[in-house]
Amino acid sequence: MDNIVFNNGKLKFLDQTLLPNEERYIEPKCKEDYFNAIKTLQVRGAPAIGIFAAYAMALIDGDKAELKEYLDSARPTAVNLSWATARMLKAYNDGKELIDEAVEIHNEDIEMCRKISEYGLSLLNDGDGILTHCNAGALATSKYGTGLGPLLLGKEKGYNFKVYTDETRPLLQGARLTSYELEKAGIDVTLICDNMASIVMKQGKINAVLVGADRIAANGDTANKIGTSGVAILAKHYGIPFYVLAPYSTVDFNCKSGDDIVIEERDGDEIKNMFYQKPTALPETKCFNPAFDVTDNELITAIITDKGIVRAPYDKNLKEILND
Amino acid sequence: MDNIVFNNGKLKFLDQTLLPNEERYIEPKCKEDYFNAIKTLQVRGAPAIGIFAAYAMALIDGDKAELKEYLDSARPTAVNLSWATARMLKAYNDGKELIDEAVEIHNEDIEMCRKISEYGLSLLNDGDGILTHCNAGALATSKYGTGLGPLLLGKEKGYNFKVYTDETRPLLQGARLTSYELEKAGIDVTLICDNMASIVMKQGKINAVLVGADRIAANGDTANKIGTSGVAILAKHYGIPFYVLAPYSTVDFNCKSGDDIVIEERDGDEIKNMFYQKPTALPETKCFNPAFDVTDNELITAIITDKGIVRAPYDKNLKEILND
Repeated sequence: MDNIVFNNGKLKFLDQTLLPNEERYIEPKCKEDYFNAIKTLQVRGAPAIGIFAAYAMALIDGDKAELKEYLDSARPTAVNLSWATARMLKAYNDGKELIDEAVEIHNEDIEMCRKISEYGLSLLNDGDGILTHCNAGALATSKYGTGLGPLLLGKEKGYNFKVYTDETRPLLQGARLTSYELEKAGIDVTLICDNMASIVMKQGKINAVLVGADRIAANGDTANKIGTSGVAILAKHYGIPFYVLAPYSTVDFNCKSGDDIVIEERDGDEIKNMFYQKPTALPETKCFNPAFDVTDNELITAIITDKGIVRAPYDKNLKEILND
Repeated sequence: MDNIVFNNGKLKFLDQTLLPNEERYIEPKCKEDYFNAIKTLQVRGAPAIGIFAAYAMALIDGDKAELKEYLDSARPTAVNLSWATARMLKAYNDGKELIDEAVEIHNEDIEMCRKISEYGLSLLNDGDGILTHCNAGALATSKYGTGLGPLLLGKEKGYNFKVYTDETRPLLQGARLTSYELEKAGIDVTLICDNMASIVMKQGKINAVLVGADRIAANGDTANKIGTSGVAILAKHYGIPFYVLAPYSTVDFNCKSGDDIVIEERDGDEIKNMFYQKPTALPETKCFNPAFDVTDNELITAIITDKGIVRAPYDKNLKEILND
């Protein structure tokens, strides 16, 4: 699934807001097109946004410092976005060929995902049943993705997995994106509601759980899409390995533990109004809508990074992996 | 919340398919009106269906044996339905006043729910945070309900609870019905997605979990709405009591354990199409849609019935409660 394609000097991207019902590639023409694509989540996923903005820095003429500031403001909290535009601005100031730098950022991400995917795949067996939550696939990165990487790489190598994906309420990334990209890759995928994870585990259908990560604390506590911690507790109960897959850069050594990670709380309308035909609750009904939760390190079997596979004690081993 | 109201010789019912967006009472005029109300889930919940069909047996003229057969066919698997119509047919054959028998069935259900509610309330404290899943309230029974009974009874007695209700995918009974009836009863209720149960428990917001039951095996294993077992595992992980509330008649001593309970599997369209504005996954994407799951007895702190509170070992104590 190529979400960002640079070919013959031209860039196009897959509009993710239309998935899974329509597959439309769009060619951005001006800086506003790039800005809006990021702002409206047509391009989403931290690494993908970074890659996309890097191409924008290369392909849009004008004052590059102003352009960087403009693009960064499309999603102010996306660290990868400002990281990529800063790197491009530095390349510009250093007199480098900008499109080469953008392609390099793109290729580095593919390489990072490939490494994570290979490390992850080394822990799986052909025929395994896999549960995943949210979307940590190629749509959110470049090729392969992180959480879905071992499945997509495994498919290329002839592995057959039976994948179950939680729909991932309230924004349904598991249904709209994960089931879509696994289906397109020819992988056996079955969509379930989030509350069905327990029964598929109990029925022996799951050999491993694979998820991505938004931020990993120094002690291994991992923030990821809301619901991830619940899946981890179920996996522990049923004795199923629970793997977190993410770039090593996701580890934030400034966060001692998950308690230091602030959880974004979003509008309750996402729960009761956004995707449904009619409101599912009264207008006056309160909703609690945290976007992420923290999975305690004790629930995580291993953290799989592009630097290697890290196991407990994470405090020590997340640092030491760099020395190996 | 009165879902079935018999007053001045006339019956009316609340159309639950329109909730929470419209509150409309309907007066059934002929046997087809009763049949369709059951068939299309305008009246739902096993006890409520039984009460409703009992009134139909009393209020509709004609061959009562034929009427029973006709009503039973509206939802063939609903045990309470055929139980209630059989009792009404026997009352007819015994020459009893039928409307009195229907009112008695109705009152017995209210009394049963009141007992469950009182036993349940004895385990809670004022100010407790409560998590519930699906809908086991007055809408599914008569007054109070089972799983929600202690909350509704407690409200009458001046208790203040802070209730969190899972929306309960795929059919959203928690959003459409539970949040609705708690809101109407003036109880502090907050709607969450199913996958947010872990975070509200972790944040210390939950002191007890209350759920209903569809069938309880002799060893205490409990079949209830899909997702219940997952909530029970989370509660155990966080050290929160998990209570099942149901009429004693829900215990099926013919089922030795949960392995003997067959789980109904429903159409995948309920997951990806039914409530959403657009399909959430590709037409070819497989769905797995079990309607119920089984919660192992080891995860259940107590089973609260109209005969009293039962704790482990359930094998022994579910039988012995009758002797106490």
